[in-house]
Parts: sequence; C-alpha cells; structure tokens
Amino acid sequence: MKVKEDLINQIEQEARAILDDSLSSHDWDHILRVYKLCEHIGQIEGADMEILRLAAILHDIGRMEQHKSKGKICHAQKGAEMAGKILVDHGLSQEKIDKIVHCIRTHRSKGKNTPETLEAKILFDADKLDSLGAIGLARTYAFTGEIGSRIHNKDVDVKSVKEYSREDNCYWEFLANLQFKKDKMMTKEGKRMALERHKFMADFFERINKEVDGEM
Amino acid sequence: MKVKEDLINQIEQEARAILDDSLSSHDWDHILRVYKLCEHIGQIEGADMEILRLAAILHDIGRMEQHKSKGKICHAQKGAEMAGKILVDHGLSQEKIDKIVHCIRTHRSKGKNTPETLEAKILFDADKLDSLGAIGLARTYAFTGEIGSRIHNKDVDVKSVKEYSREDNCYWEFLANLQFKKDKMMTKEGKRMALERHKFMADFFERINKEVDGEM
Repeated sequence: MKVKEDLINQIEQEARAILDDSLSSHDWDHILRVYKLCEHIGQIEGADMEILRLAAILHDIGRMEQHKSKGKICHAQKGAEMAGKILVDHGLSQEKIDKIVHCIRTHRSKGKNTPETLEAKILFDADKLDSLGAIGLARTYAFTGEIGSRIHNKDVDVKSVKEYSREDNCYWEFLANLQFKKDKMMTKEGKRMALERHKFMADFFERINKEVDGEM
Repeated sequence: MKVKEDLINQIEQEARAILDDSLSSHDWDHILRVYKLCEHIGQIEGADMEILRLAAILHDIGRMEQHKSKGKICHAQKGAEMAGKILVDHGLSQEKIDKIVHCIRTHRSKGKNTPETLEAKILFDADKLDSLGAIGLARTYAFTGEIGSRIHNKDVDVKSVKEYSREDNCYWEFLANLQFKKDKMMTKEGKRMALERHKFMADFFERINKEVDGEM
C-alpha cells in the first residue's frame, strides 16, 4: 500500500504540472473534487481503487490541448494518450494501463466512447456530479461571469439562445443541459447522488425566480 | 397616476441609456430587481411610492463614473448629482427632488451619509437584499468568474486574503462581508427578508463544503 501511495503522489505531481489553473471550471480543485467523489462511490460500488484513483487524477490532463485547439482536439482522447505515456514511464503493467486509459478515454459526456468497466462508469458519474448541486451552480455562475453574460433571466428562451451569448447564463445551462445529467448516470450511487443534487438545483432556480420578482 | 407612470417610464429610459451593461453585477437587471424589492417593501412599510420608484430607477447611474475613476468617485454621490439634474429637467418640485436625491446619496453601505427617510431606508435595504439569497450567490460567483478566482475553497483564511486574489471567491466574500448585511437592515420587512436570505446562503455554504469533500 505504501508503494501505491507513493506512485499516486508522484503521478499527482505530474498531472498537476500539466493542468493549467487558468481554466477555473476545470482547475486542480475540480480534479480533487472528482477524486473525492470517486473515493466515495468507488468504496460503495466495490471498485479497483488503484485504477480509479489514477484515472481520476489524470482524467483532465488533455484539457489545455482541447482549449488551445478551440475544441478540435478532444481532451478525453488526448488525455488518454498522454496518460498512457506517463503510466508506462512509471512501470505499470500493460493490463493496468489499459484499464486506466479506458476510464480517461470514455469519461466525456460528448465523447464517442462509452464506459464499459465499473471504474470507467464511476469516473464518468463523478465528473458529471461535479456539474450538479451547489458546486454545479457555483461553477456555472462563475462561467457566466467569465463570459460576461446576464446573471439571471427567468424568461430565457432555451431554444433560441446560442452558446456564448449574453443570455448564456446558469439558468439557460440548466434548462438546456444540466437538468438531463441525472438521467445519464451509470452507477447506482452516482444516480442517487445526481438525483439529490438535481433537486437542489431545481429548488434553487425556483427560489431565484421568486427573488428576482421581489417575492422573497 | 397616468402622468406619474409616463414620468417614470421617461426617466427609466434615460437611466437605462446611462447605465452600461458591461458591469454584470450592476447592470439593468440589478436595477429591476431592486425596483421590485422597493415595490414589495414600500407597499408594506407605507412609503411614498413615486419618490421610491424614481430613486430605485436612478440609484446606480453614477456606477460607470466610479468604475472609470477606479473607485475615486463615489457612485452614490455622483449619482445623486446626476439624478438631480435629470429630475429638474422633468419639472419635478424641489421638495420631491431633494427626497429622491437623498435616497440615492445614502444608499451605499460604504457611503458617508446615512438614510434618514423611510424611502431612503427602503432603497438601502433593497440594494443590500440583492447581494443576499440565491441572487446574491449568483452575483458573487459570477464575480468570481470575472476575476478568475478559485470556485470554492472551504478552508479560505478570511483575514489573510486580499481582494482580487485567486482566493477572492464567493465563500470568502460571505465570511468577510455578506454575512453581516442582515445586521444593517433599516426597515422591518427588509430585516425579515435579509434574515431569510442569509439563512439560505449559510445553508448553501454548509452544503457546498460537504459536496467538495465528496460527502453529498
């Protein structure tokens, strides 16, 4: 166990050096939150924790490549390639590397590949959970500020709004996208948590709609 | 009543033309929210609604001057001067103008002047209420995104953090500033609403602190 912890710490340092904190919504804090969710779900679902922990630490190392290419490069694909090389250098068996790389390659909602192993399903769920609940609201409102859109428009028209407009606010993101995340969860514990976080978000918007009308 | 509504509509157009939407946290939506809160509190507290409505519409017209001067100009002072000129042009009596200008001059928490009339106290409360509750969270997280700070750090050290650092996030703002707003309210209804909105915020942070540890 001592050796495994050393390995995880070493790879954590490498991943952290690659990840640029300039992307607030996917900075190192996001990795830590996903890691902790993987710990929680992994213990309940009975996952291989070494595979899962390493996959969690490395899952977004392709983010900057996706960002720099303006979305042409898929961070899940790129991250899987980058992770494979890092893990080979640390002398992991090819079997383990393949399992970790599969988790990273399939963790993206919009990705072409589907999670097939328990560990990949857990990483997928943990990553989605970080866009729900209070932290999901916080991340999405921060994005609202990043792109300078309106804070809240309770009458936003989901269909007519394009991304990166002044109307691309948190409520629009919830109606157009986040409210469906709960239906895509792949593990039992992930689903349970997603439903609870979803309800918190839905209640938040019900409340804010009243507040902006001066009713609360 | 028809004449008064026309007057309010005309002055609304002028105020809207002055206010630049580039300041998301104090854009026209903020004015509308404060206006609706003034409607609500004003009816309950028995305010002069013409004075209060005009003060609400005009209360932030000095914002851009404060922003451009990097804080050297106080938007409440400047806004009061600007509003006085607008209201003279619309032929309001000096008595009414003085009452409206007093509201605008004294609405700022950090300002030197204290609200002395019922209408000024209501505007003060309404403006503070818009920094509390769900909308207060939304505005503060958006500001977090604007300045590129961390989304959430549950261990943030309130005393050591300077403004505009990567640690200047919503939670820091709550601990250092927003949690004390409820104690500064000046009307009964404002106080009631502030306590309720404060509790919602405190509960939100209790929750997000658990979420980031993977516990929810």
